[in-house]
Amino acid sequence: MLRFHFGYDEPGKFQSGKRLRPQLLLRTALEEGGRIEEALDAAVAIEILHNYSLVHDDIEDGDELRHGRTTIWKRFGVPHGINTGDALCAISYLTLLHEHSCAPAERVVAMLHVLHEANLHMCEGQGLDIGFETRSIVTMAQYRDMIAGKTGALFSASCELGALAAGCTWERARQYARLGRAYGLAFQIRDDVLGTWGTTDVTGKPSGADIARRKWSFPIVWALGTPPSRDREIVARAYDTNACIAREHVGDVIAALDRLGARAAADAVHDRALDDADALAAEAHVDANASIRNFLALGARRVA
Amino acid sequence: MLRFHFGYDEPGKFQSGKRLRPQLLLRTALEEGGRIEEALDAAVAIEILHNYSLVHDDIEDGDELRHGRTTIWKRFGVPHGINTGDALCAISYLTLLHEHSCAPAERVVAMLHVLHEANLHMCEGQGLDIGFETRSIVTMAQYRDMIAGKTGALFSASCELGALAAGCTWERARQYARLGRAYGLAFQIRDDVLGTWGTTDVTGKPSGADIARRKWSFPIVWALGTPPSRDREIVARAYDTNACIAREHVGDVIAALDRLGARAAADAVHDRALDDADALAAEAHVDANASIRNFLALGARRVA
Repeated sequence: MLRFHFGYDEPGKFQSGKRLRPQLLLRTALEEGGRIEEALDAAVAIEILHNYSLVHDDIEDGDELRHGRTTIWKRFGVPHGINTGDALCAISYLTLLHEHSCAPAERVVAMLHVLHEANLHMCEGQGLDIGFETRSIVTMAQYRDMIAGKTGALFSASCELGALAAGCTWERARQYARLGRAYGLAFQIRDDVLGTWGTTDVTGKPSGADIARRKWSFPIVWALGTPPSRDREIVARAYDTNACIAREHVGDVIAALDRLGARAAADAVHDRALDDADALAAEAHVDANASIRNFLALGARRVA
Repeated sequence: MLRFHFGYDEPGKFQSGKRLRPQLLLRTALEEGGRIEEALDAAVAIEILHNYSLVHDDIEDGDELRHGRTTIWKRFGVPHGINTGDALCAISYLTLLHEHSCAPAERVVAMLHVLHEANLHMCEGQGLDIGFETRSIVTMAQYRDMIAGKTGALFSASCELGALAAGCTWERARQYARLGRAYGLAFQIRDDVLGTWGTTDVTGKPSGADIARRKWSFPIVWALGTPPSRDREIVARAYDTNACIAREHVGDVIAALDRLGARAAADAVHDRALDDADALAAEAHVDANASIRNFLALGARRVA
């Protein structure tokens, strides 16, 4: 089942994830003078931990496809789906703990601590997100808490683990954790903008995909926080139901979001997160900041 | 939700689990001259890890009650059930990793390794068990592999962690791991016997509960391994369906198992596991062996 998930079962069908988190980790390790070999275990561990969360999220969200492949639960049933995710979680940690690890025990303990805290934080974010499904309003503070867990936790851990793998001090690693958190916020806001305004040739999904799924994304949460207006009412009415939103209404919701200025608001928060990242990187003398940003495709300030 | 699971939500309704694994761990630590305070983190960690597996098992098996309490998924839905189990798993490891831990880093790494390996082994056992549900035959070797994971892994880890917490060498801890595995086997066989022949006043469940649920227990697997006979056919026909077995046929299956000698076979394997445990304990000079056996209520060689 693990082979199926990663696409090892068919030649040339290897899962096409972007490997953002291990890349972030390895780039941080290199920036701090570490060798790839020292950071590779942690990079594999964080990618596997990310995949465990995807396997369980797909069950929780009822998603039948991921990266164009059938999801584990859809193919083998929910019980095997849960259990395979659990196994991935254990394997993630064992990757850091294997016998041939050359890292000193104190560093391994610190890295495991980061990875487990990130996992718990992810669960907190996911718990909020599941709870949102039956809500008719989500505040900006609740949305921020949710993405801090669901996206921020692993971005933060990726940078922190990269620094620890390179032998940095705990304090230095904490600076990278903050940098990763800022990148995570920018990344998620951009993902939300793409989920609303992105065209199919960029995202591979129909335009307005997040709205059709009634997903609580930044533009929606922001729009519902504006004073009463006709446009706010259009958004509120569309989300005041537990069902999906009919395809023909998605365009009306997007038009209302545009008139309210939700896209500009999202871009502003995205830009502010990048400014924060720049300030943190400057303060901590992180030379790789620009290259990491380019890699995350966060360089372009506006979404094309 | 975690409070609900453990029964913290209602005064006096605290979850009534037997705490076998932490007890096994603490008794091992004391036997090896450790202090309770040194072993308490690990004891809490293994009980929480056990509970994570219960929360996910209850979803996988569709069980709506545990210890007389509604299960998490039944009360809050499957998505929250999966996610709460994931959080418990992370919390289990964090219990061993907390900042005020007084154990040296090498020992913490060794203990985490044991705990993660046990988790992965549990998943392997659970994966086999889920697969058994749609099978019309399970071999004794497959059954043994399944219980070695589902029950043996945590019993083994309990003893091994108790020894490590007390500061034993890795080699000494491995001896305890083998002892725990033998106890786990005896415990599971006795559990299977109780699930078939146990009376309601002992088990709290209707007699023949495992058969009514079409569970692949030792007596069934053993009976299906005997040469063709009328009685074997009664058992085979009852299990040759994916549905539950009608209440009125459970008695026929138990009578057939009795005539085949399945109970005596189970008792023999149970006794042999205890003999193995005794031999391991004698070889390793484990004085607490008798007291641990009494605690696990494995002292009585036959099930009352």
